[in-house]
Amino acid sequence: MDPLVSIIMGSTSDLPVMEKAADILNDFEVPFEVIALSAHRTPEEVERFSREAQGKGIKVIIAGAGMAAHLPGVIAAQTTLPVIGVPVKASLEGWDSILSILQMPPGIPVATVGLNAARNAGLLAIQLLALSDTGLQDKLTRFKEDLKKKVISANQELTSIKKYPFKTN
Amino acid sequence: MDPLVSIIMGSTSDLPVMEKAADILNDFEVPFEVIALSAHRTPEEVERFSREAQGKGIKVIIAGAGMAAHLPGVIAAQTTLPVIGVPVKASLEGWDSILSILQMPPGIPVATVGLNAARNAGLLAIQLLALSDTGLQDKLTRFKEDLKKKVISANQELTSIKKYPFKTN
Amino acid sequence: MDPLVSIIMGSTSDLPVMEKAADILNDFEVPFEVIALSAHRTPEEVERFSREAQGKGIKVIIAGAGMAAHLPGVIAAQTTLPVIGVPVKASLEGWDSILSILQMPPGIPVATVGLNAARNAGLLAIQLLALSDTGLQDKLTRFKEDLKKKVISANQELTSIKKYPFKTN
Amino acid sequence: MDPLVSIIMGSTSDLPVMEKAADILNDFEVPFEVIALSAHRTPEEVERFSREAQGKGIKVIIAGAGMAAHLPGVIAAQTTLPVIGVPVKASLEGWDSILSILQMPPGIPVATVGLNAARNAGLLAIQLLALSDTGLQDKLTRFKEDLKKKVISANQELTSIKKYPFKTN
Amino acid sequence: MDPLVSIIMGSTSDLPVMEKAADILNDFEVPFEVIALSAHRTPEEVERFSREAQGKGIKVIIAGAGMAAHLPGVIAAQTTLPVIGVPVKASLEGWDSILSILQMPPGIPVATVGLNAARNAGLLAIQLLALSDTGLQDKLTRFKEDLKKKVISANQELTSIKKYPFKTN
Amino acid sequence: MDPLVSIIMGSTSDLPVMEKAADILNDFEVPFEVIALSAHRTPEEVERFSREAQGKGIKVIIAGAGMAAHLPGVIAAQTTLPVIGVPVKASLEGWDSILSILQMPPGIPVATVGLNAARNAGLLAIQLLALSDTGLQDKLTRFKEDLKKKVISANQELTSIKKYPFKTN
Amino acid sequence: MDPLVSIIMGSTSDLPVMEKAADILNDFEVPFEVIALSAHRTPEEVERFSREAQGKGIKVIIAGAGMAAHLPGVIAAQTTLPVIGVPVKASLEGWDSILSILQMPPGIPVATVGLNAARNAGLLAIQLLALSDTGLQDKLTRFKEDLKKKVISANQELTSIKKYPFKTN
Amino acid sequence: MDPLVSIIMGSTSDLPVMEKAADILNDFEVPFEVIALSAHRTPEEVERFSREAQGKGIKVIIAGAGMAAHLPGVIAAQTTLPVIGVPVKASLEGWDSILSILQMPPGIPVATVGLNAARNAGLLAIQLLALSDTGLQDKLTRFKEDLKKKVISANQELTSIKKYPFKTN
Repeated sequence: MDPLVSIIMGSTSDLPVMEKAADILNDFEVPFEVIALSAHRTPEEVERFSREAQGKGIKVIIAGAGMAAHLPGVIAAQTTLPVIGVPVKASLEGWDSILSILQMPPGIPVATVGLNAARNAGLLAIQLLALSDTGLQDKLTRFKEDLKKKVISANQELTSIKKYPFKTN
Repeated sequence: MDPLVSIIMGSTSDLPVMEKAADILNDFEVPFEVIALSAHRTPEEVERFSREAQGKGIKVIIAGAGMAAHLPGVIAAQTTLPVIGVPVKASLEGWDSILSILQMPPGIPVATVGLNAARNAGLLAIQLLALSDTGLQDKLTRFKEDLKKKVISANQELTSIKKYPFKTN
Repeated sequence: MDPLVSIIMGSTSDLPVMEKAADILNDFEVPFEVIALSAHRTPEEVERFSREAQGKGIKVIIAGAGMAAHLPGVIAAQTTLPVIGVPVKASLEGWDSILSILQMPPGIPVATVGLNAARNAGLLAIQLLALSDTGLQDKLTRFKEDLKKKVISANQELTSIKKYPFKTN
Repeated sequence: MDPLVSIIMGSTSDLPVMEKAADILNDFEVPFEVIALSAHRTPEEVERFSREAQGKGIKVIIAGAGMAAHLPGVIAAQTTLPVIGVPVKASLEGWDSILSILQMPPGIPVATVGLNAARNAGLLAIQLLALSDTGLQDKLTRFKEDLKKKVISANQELTSIKKYPFKTN
Repeated sequence: MDPLVSIIMGSTSDLPVMEKAADILNDFEVPFEVIALSAHRTPEEVERFSREAQGKGIKVIIAGAGMAAHLPGVIAAQTTLPVIGVPVKASLEGWDSILSILQMPPGIPVATVGLNAARNAGLLAIQLLALSDTGLQDKLTRFKEDLKKKVISANQELTSIKKYPFKTN
Repeated sequence: MDPLVSIIMGSTSDLPVMEKAADILNDFEVPFEVIALSAHRTPEEVERFSREAQGKGIKVIIAGAGMAAHLPGVIAAQTTLPVIGVPVKASLEGWDSILSILQMPPGIPVATVGLNAARNAGLLAIQLLALSDTGLQDKLTRFKEDLKKKVISANQELTSIKKYPFKTN
Repeated sequence: MDPLVSIIMGSTSDLPVMEKAADILNDFEVPFEVIALSAHRTPEEVERFSREAQGKGIKVIIAGAGMAAHLPGVIAAQTTLPVIGVPVKASLEGWDSILSILQMPPGIPVATVGLNAARNAGLLAIQLLALSDTGLQDKLTRFKEDLKKKVISANQELTSIKKYPFKTN
Repeated sequence: MDPLVSIIMGSTSDLPVMEKAADILNDFEVPFEVIALSAHRTPEEVERFSREAQGKGIKVIIAGAGMAAHLPGVIAAQTTLPVIGVPVKASLEGWDSILSILQMPPGIPVATVGLNAARNAGLLAIQLLALSDTGLQDKLTRFKEDLKKKVISANQELTSIKKYPFKTN
């Protein structure tokens, strides 16, 4: 089983955030790998990974980093695979990582998700893979249905609140 | 007893903030309902609710959401009832929800209150209803008097501080 | 004809923004007055106006101000009528007026609209008045229909773009 | 020729930004459509479009909006296709549109690009399509080569600066 | 002993911040009063206080408030006494109170100190009083000397650090 | 005639902002001096000025600067006279100068006014001087009356707007 | 004559800002080179340059970039030479470039100067070189003297203002 | 052994941040001193230190401060030695100290590192010293190698995660 998605992080301190991407990929039964690479400490390894990813069958790269978060952009510079960037909150409420990932210059896009939103990054990767995988497409449709069901159960919880005489539902 | 106000939230995680709207409506004896609806997970239900609210006697809608908080605006797009938006602090100190609710485009206003200010949202709903309900109007007048009394009791507390020889009151 | 809405501004320098509220109220044939009052330069007049507004038939107050924009909040402190606040951009990209109007303390809500969004403030006032005026309600419904038509004409404009060989519509 | 990419904008005022997405798609000979849809003014049309897009062969949706920019998120809520969001600068230096698009809640990702970066949105769409189109893949590789050549010509320009006696290149 | 300085706060929740102003005034043996007044809940009392302060011998007013902090500005509007504003951090990291106090419109200045900096507000009041009180002036001079001594003792602490072989002092 | 107020600026590029302080002092017939001093380029001169100001009869110092605006704080460090700081907008919308002046550490307050608000700085200086000068006090009272009159004339201007059939005043 | 300083920029659009570094280096007669390198478009060239710089005699690298400005950090990752980063204002008032350069992770510092402050970057490079070059040291001392003289001439300009009867100098 | 680097802080409350600079200098066996100096409380001592530093053999100055952090800039104003500024987070999430240090006016650069990044400040000082010290240069090269090794061990940790059936590495 070859991986379709690479989850990249600069250090294991980002793991508590980035493992949510692994969780959702695993739930959807999408094979993936998890690698530590640092734009600043292992630039050659980043370059080698970026150039070889497509050849070994990777379809999407998810890269997370905090502070001056160069990793997603530096990978995107060296591959034509889509790169999903996850700003990790590490300093300044996360503004530094958001802007370092989002505001890429013309020609080198990074598909940025919200702060610490590694789970959404995993879902976005699945959406990309589902473009050519009807099995994944079906799972996504069921996933959306499940999201709705959570709202229904939330409504049951809200309806069960009985402490307000003037609450009518 | 039919509800006059709908309190809408995206998930029960917003309940600790949004129940302050329920508290004040209940104190003023205004009938209300509490519903979970998500602009992103149950868009059809949001649409159905928005279109039917006026017909079932709702006068004001209070909608709270965090992050990219689309719920108040999406409801406002589909009703001519006034919609009060409550930015809920969930990420980025709340700036994302404030701007996602406040900065609505021309033609679709949302009456935005402060961050996490669901109690003020409830009061604003009461002010709207009081335009055609003199009983509510009287209660609001008494409520404002009570606010003053809290300042008076605060003054008593401040006057009772005796540790400063150079404090004159 | 007695006014139902008061449009308040601190100085005539706010008129280019605030007159958009007058425009939409006039379009909806809602009688209104336009008054200059300053929380900081004419506090007694603000107080008198706020206390007398309801008695003379005003239903909604729209107040706009820039910088440390205290006017909407100071009016709201002295009336139980709903007050719609319009942050006017005058310094610091408008952040000062947004926060000075939006972040009112508990007990004194201001229904805040977006930066310079006086037209939305006017619309919100109309939505409040329409709660007890079916004629206004009908006009609002037609107004929403007209908003849709603008999108249709926008689509015609986009369809008419012919410079792209690979554009399919 | 059926479109593979939909470029969506709320009004033609966003066209000067969004047409850069059309430019790059056209350059890569990717068939696309350009549609005006408003999350707030035509919610039913947004819903219909979102549900029908996949069935008619669309693979990627690019949606741009300014201010409280709900359009990309509202579309993403109603399709499993990947949605690329373009924050358009219209107020508050663009912070409102960035946060309204980027900070989507769990379960509904939007692939956000930089402020006004519609060209990068188009490129990202091409990168997704190239996952299953080797012709596009080759074009992307050449495109990256061309980016390098611009840096080479920039160097020639810098080398030609002769006004500094102490400049050595 | 009549008070020379009034310390005003909107509620006793601001006391932990504002009492630092009382501490320093007491240390300098400047008589002062501490009063709760709310721009929004007791506007008439604010007006009466502001108009009577000068007549009863007050020289400087220190006013602290959080969120949309109108209190210092509203007082300044109704007196010609200098008003020192203390932004109290209560929401949004304190940005709302800073901007609501600092960005006063032309004609009504408030002497703003840093976030939660009530002690500095007290010192500034003492500096104003010292303009016509040589006793206070002497105390201020000694106070500045004491500030220096703290730096000297800090140096002794730093010199005593012995864990670094390559530290030379 | 000895000056009572020193207006200090780092360079003549700040003159268009800072001369508004001179204008208002001159209007109130308060003698003042205008001096260029730079915390970074002429630190010794700043020190000499700060130490000698009180001895030569100066009562208040107004200091304006932009960017990392150290001048007001550096002066305040070396005198016990009250220092009024004027943040001058030169970069980053003025946030750098606001924070560099406002957020002084404990023990060294600077009375900060709004961005570019040199006129308010001048007025604040006059308010301080008026504490011991009844002539100035009378002028301030008349000044406040004049502020009100401007609102009255603004009202006349607003009343004269006749283009709205539904405007009632 | 071999260069001691490399001035690097991503594209010639940064030249109007970055040439101020060249100006000051040239004034101090420090040999330098000017090169275009892009972290995202020519990553291999950045790597080659960074690794070879020290060997060819470069002592300091000045790198400027806008938006998600990765260039200074990516160079710093691959050399032990000091790298001075110049945030160039290109979007979002420059906050993106400031944070992308300043907030480097542990182990890879970039010496950041202010927004668009290429001249200061050049001066900082000269200060580093002067550590082992007494000729440069003397020039720096004279440069600081000249800075003072500009303040003196500013004072003459301020003294020459004669329009204020109450101006005393 | 004479110190080559001075680590300056305003008070011992900055020690937990600033001692990371001492740690790394000590690790590299660079002699240093640690001194408390306050721009606001001991301006004369700052001046004396700044003027004498070069004469006593100091090559680089590291200065850290919080809030309106004038210390690095005030030192830089009075020496031609390179000054590395460390913004210390003490209020407002650290924005005040970042801007007060980074945004120095033309002519007086401060080499700013990230928020609380005293360790990077120490490393930057070592990089400067290594320009004329091949022993230090070798240590820096080994230090960079060690940074890479941490990434390798992070990879081992990531590879050892076995809870995901669809994880392939």
